[in-house]
Amino acid sequence: MKIQLWSIGKAHESYVKEGIELFTKRLNNYFSADWKIIPSPKNAAGLEPEELKTKEEEIILAQLKKDDYLILLDERGKLLNNMALANFIQQRANDSTKTCIFLIGGAYGVSKGIQQRANFTWSLSSLVFPHQLARLILAEQLYRCCSILKNEKYHH
Amino acid sequence: MKIQLWSIGKAHESYVKEGIELFTKRLNNYFSADWKIIPSPKNAAGLEPEELKTKEEEIILAQLKKDDYLILLDERGKLLNNMALANFIQQRANDSTKTCIFLIGGAYGVSKGIQQRANFTWSLSSLVFPHQLARLILAEQLYRCCSILKNEKYHH
Repeated sequence: MKIQLWSIGKAHESYVKEGIELFTKRLNNYFSADWKIIPSPKNAAGLEPEELKTKEEEIILAQLKKDDYLILLDERGKLLNNMALANFIQQRANDSTKTCIFLIGGAYGVSKGIQQRANFTWSLSSLVFPHQLARLILAEQLYRCCSILKNEKYHH
Repeated sequence: MKIQLWSIGKAHESYVKEGIELFTKRLNNYFSADWKIIPSPKNAAGLEPEELKTKEEEIILAQLKKDDYLILLDERGKLLNNMALANFIQQRANDSTKTCIFLIGGAYGVSKGIQQRANFTWSLSSLVFPHQLARLILAEQLYRCCSILKNEKYHH
């Protein structure tokens, strides 16, 4: 199974870049994993939130394949503990999912179309994190879950 | 009110240092806030978890003042959303708390003595984060809460 980490917006900011690279590299010991940063549409700052989300939807849907398993990170999603997240990833691998995509939405979240396309909606926390920090947390958590599945020491 | 961020262990690792400094600086626009890194006891690696926690308890209690309001970060604590956390901080300021201390425990958590001394136990998430990353999340969340209390744009 391949893992892809998609995020709308700018490149990783310097305050999270080293950590994202560190944990993504470690994650790659378990699954082929890489980031796709989807730039915001042109003139994003001049668009109303709903227009922006519609534009982002077009860009995202054009890049998704039919059998991609899409996990949307959204504060209205389901909270999971580490064991539940690890089991969730194991189930995808067991399901013969080819590509599991974790999507961090844009500044205003994502459109209804993307919400409907998502196979699962996951909330990292009852706290809201900036999107850049969510990237770092996501990379670390996926690495953590893999270490749990392999009974390694990292998580204790 | 002063805010102090206490953490047991090593100095900030490079992958979180820039972010911790960034958000701590911003937090300082609202409250005087700084970090105290409490080094692990000598020979920590050779101690059993309970011995280590007892040693850490001595060090921490020796540095706490009687009227310090101690918030322990622990996965068994209460989950808060941003509004609840912001209100919690506002209440401490209204209570005339002089110093509000947020404590991130050691590798095995903290002793029962510290748990009992804590005025409040807060869980950042149903996910477990490494202690270094918890420092970054804590700094960002406290800044976020201050921006909420001032009706600023950062949180939306």
